[in-house]
Amino acid sequence: MRSREETRHDTVLLDVDGTLVDSTYHHALAWHRAFRRHDISLPMWRVHRSIGMGGDRLVGVLAGDDVEQRIGDELRSAWHEEYAKLADEVEPLPGAADLVRTLSRRFTVALGSSGKPEFTRQAVDLVGVRDDVAVVTTSEDAPSSKPAPDILEIALQKSGGRSAIVIGDSTFDVSSAARMGAPCVAIRTGGFGADELRDAGAVLVARGLPDLLDADWDELARMQPPPGASDEPPLP
Amino acid sequence: MRSREETRHDTVLLDVDGTLVDSTYHHALAWHRAFRRHDISLPMWRVHRSIGMGGDRLVGVLAGDDVEQRIGDELRSAWHEEYAKLADEVEPLPGAADLVRTLSRRFTVALGSSGKPEFTRQAVDLVGVRDDVAVVTTSEDAPSSKPAPDILEIALQKSGGRSAIVIGDSTFDVSSAARMGAPCVAIRTGGFGADELRDAGAVLVARGLPDLLDADWDELARMQPPPGASDEPPLP
Repeated sequence: MRSREETRHDTVLLDVDGTLVDSTYHHALAWHRAFRRHDISLPMWRVHRSIGMGGDRLVGVLAGDDVEQRIGDELRSAWHEEYAKLADEVEPLPGAADLVRTLSRRFTVALGSSGKPEFTRQAVDLVGVRDDVAVVTTSEDAPSSKPAPDILEIALQKSGGRSAIVIGDSTFDVSSAARMGAPCVAIRTGGFGADELRDAGAVLVARGLPDLLDADWDELARMQPPPGASDEPPLP
Repeated sequence: MRSREETRHDTVLLDVDGTLVDSTYHHALAWHRAFRRHDISLPMWRVHRSIGMGGDRLVGVLAGDDVEQRIGDELRSAWHEEYAKLADEVEPLPGAADLVRTLSRRFTVALGSSGKPEFTRQAVDLVGVRDDVAVVTTSEDAPSSKPAPDILEIALQKSGGRSAIVIGDSTFDVSSAARMGAPCVAIRTGGFGADELRDAGAVLVARGLPDLLDADWDELARMQPPPGASDEPPLP
């Protein structure tokens, strides 16, 4: 039988885009512009709701496998160009540095992003928490992007932690976490509705990072993801 | 006692931004850029959730009455410039023209927008439904913007209708409708969560306009808004 100490998560894994920096809407616009370059017209709200999965999956999910096979790489390259033009507008989300520093006193803190390394580095520098986190893991470190658990699993492994709580802003963070057995605390900053995050299996939904300073981290450190949270989140 | 025919709504009032054209996210970015010009930093998701109320109210609600009094008009002017740069990217939402034409065979159809006349005209031309609607009402025609009912009431009055069903995409459309006693059908295209729209009092929530072709319009034409739907929608 494991002791109580052993069942307590020792690590917090944080998502970056939409969680530490306010980049979700810029990513949505960049993808929308990338698709438009190829005469593919998608409602912005559907593009928005797909931000948080990796770019390797997004094209096929939104535009179909045929488009992915035909011009997937061209679309990702167009997205990269379009996002680079918008990246300077991206700001830290309120409370990001404060929460990371506060959590780092009680937990090992690691960052796990589905994003490109250059944009993730830029985001981490912007928030100014490089010295407060054990490791930063990006799409380059993992074979499959969210909602696959690979990025989070590698972040946990590299950080030397035993088990983790995840903080994210999208349904993909929730299911990605659940697939490695981790509970996910979700914040509204990615623009998902509270019900979408709860239905995905978030164990707590908060407006933003400052609200998590007052959360009961002792309780969260003992939680497990609810049944079904590891399912592929449906795109609305 | 009113006959059954008299209790049947004879008019459909449609919102324009986010309902007929895919402009919600462009409006959010334009407002975000406008606030940034004045060194006011607001999380994008909160700006997004305020799109649908009029610009006369948005500044005070998002940034406070002090900011409204000090630089409200400058912010609106900055938004206008920023949105004008993005407006060419705005596209009709799928099914917009088809739904307007289909409904116009059974109902008087009128458009009621909180937007600026020039952008609303541009949107209506883009969708190509000017000849299918009885009237287009914009912020210029009404003293107060949504969620006040003025714009919808004036649109109903000008169209010669007796009572209306409203189709919109935001919680502000729902409460604006309820304040004139009209039920509101809400679509997800503005990026609100389904629960946000249902909680606001939408009598039906659909993914988009094509889904409304199959709705039971006989039933909708007899519905009333639920109690509480006229309350000011809370900003999340």
